[in-house]
Amino acid sequence: MEFSSKLLENAVSEITQLPGIGKRTALRLALHLLKLPKENTTDLTQSLNDLREQINFCTSCHNLSDVPLCEICANPKRDGSLLCVVEDIRDVIAIESTDQFKGYYHVLGGIISPIDGVGPQDLNLETLEEKVKKGEIKEIIFALSATMEADTTNFYIYKILAPYNISTSAIARGIPVGDELEYTDEITLGRSILKRVPYENSISDK
Amino acid sequence: MEFSSKLLENAVSEITQLPGIGKRTALRLALHLLKLPKENTTDLTQSLNDLREQINFCTSCHNLSDVPLCEICANPKRDGSLLCVVEDIRDVIAIESTDQFKGYYHVLGGIISPIDGVGPQDLNLETLEEKVKKGEIKEIIFALSATMEADTTNFYIYKILAPYNISTSAIARGIPVGDELEYTDEITLGRSILKRVPYENSISDK
Repeated sequence: MEFSSKLLENAVSEITQLPGIGKRTALRLALHLLKLPKENTTDLTQSLNDLREQINFCTSCHNLSDVPLCEICANPKRDGSLLCVVEDIRDVIAIESTDQFKGYYHVLGGIISPIDGVGPQDLNLETLEEKVKKGEIKEIIFALSATMEADTTNFYIYKILAPYNISTSAIARGIPVGDELEYTDEITLGRSILKRVPYENSISDK
Repeated sequence: MEFSSKLLENAVSEITQLPGIGKRTALRLALHLLKLPKENTTDLTQSLNDLREQINFCTSCHNLSDVPLCEICANPKRDGSLLCVVEDIRDVIAIESTDQFKGYYHVLGGIISPIDGVGPQDLNLETLEEKVKKGEIKEIIFALSATMEADTTNFYIYKILAPYNISTSAIARGIPVGDELEYTDEITLGRSILKRVPYENSISDK
């Protein structure tokens, strides 16, 4: 693709650095900004710069936060005996929107993935152990994705926490609610037969 | 979706203003920027601001250009008897990449679309008529999309240029090269039977 303007070419090449955005989409976004008033572009770039320059992490759960202690960690009404281990902020948002969890979170900031060069030392594991040492937490809930890397990470943390005699659980895996059996992939279906639960436990409480 | 950070929320809401980007994608883009060095964000926002502040249009063809006369219009080797009328810069890029057109372009900057509030007065039509008046142009090629609005625009321009006794043509419409007949939509297929061409003309010259 040849551009008639170097400015446009620069903008397009910068936008394509973002994940999931190709050259055509980048061009569409750049041309869209050109059609809008200048303020729209200034507002957009200002918000991105502010985010990148000023963002901080909660000192307790390591979630993104503007203040040293995030809203969830600063809420004394939540259940201090439950700690939910998640990968990043998106998972906190997803779980919070279910309204089914009232404990606190611990954001790892990634999962162990040797292919991507992420090892245990890159995750927020030390502070997790410190929290457990305090003795208030009764149950750790692993709420990572259902991938091999997540399984590795779960097991690594499980080993670290073994000496503390704390109960650990993982979110249930199986056929998504509302899904048809015939369209479920074989691994999920096979696993959900092997890991079947007593019927009384399977009744939805909603 | 509830965010733990106002800065993140602002950035996400600004990004979702862009066409085709929803809240989830916006969050993914914002978190991606946070994982990269600060320079990446600065480069991105700088290039967008530069684009919006400094971009100009070619005084001849109205294409986006950093200089008063764009590269194509400033090229004396192109064929001054052919003028290709297109909607915007994306069409110029698309046609240029085919390497099949050696004339000049005229960018309308839109097409007549009453629903979107775009009338003839919003398009670069006066300068088109002026170009034709000079007498150098022998053929105007309509290269707009194959939509109703584009057809209306073509006809409007056709009427304006009628007094000048100039030949007009439109890019060929029909079954895309390489497509299978059975998967072609009925309107295209029906039209391509009605508007069939002499066999000799249909042989590809590639």
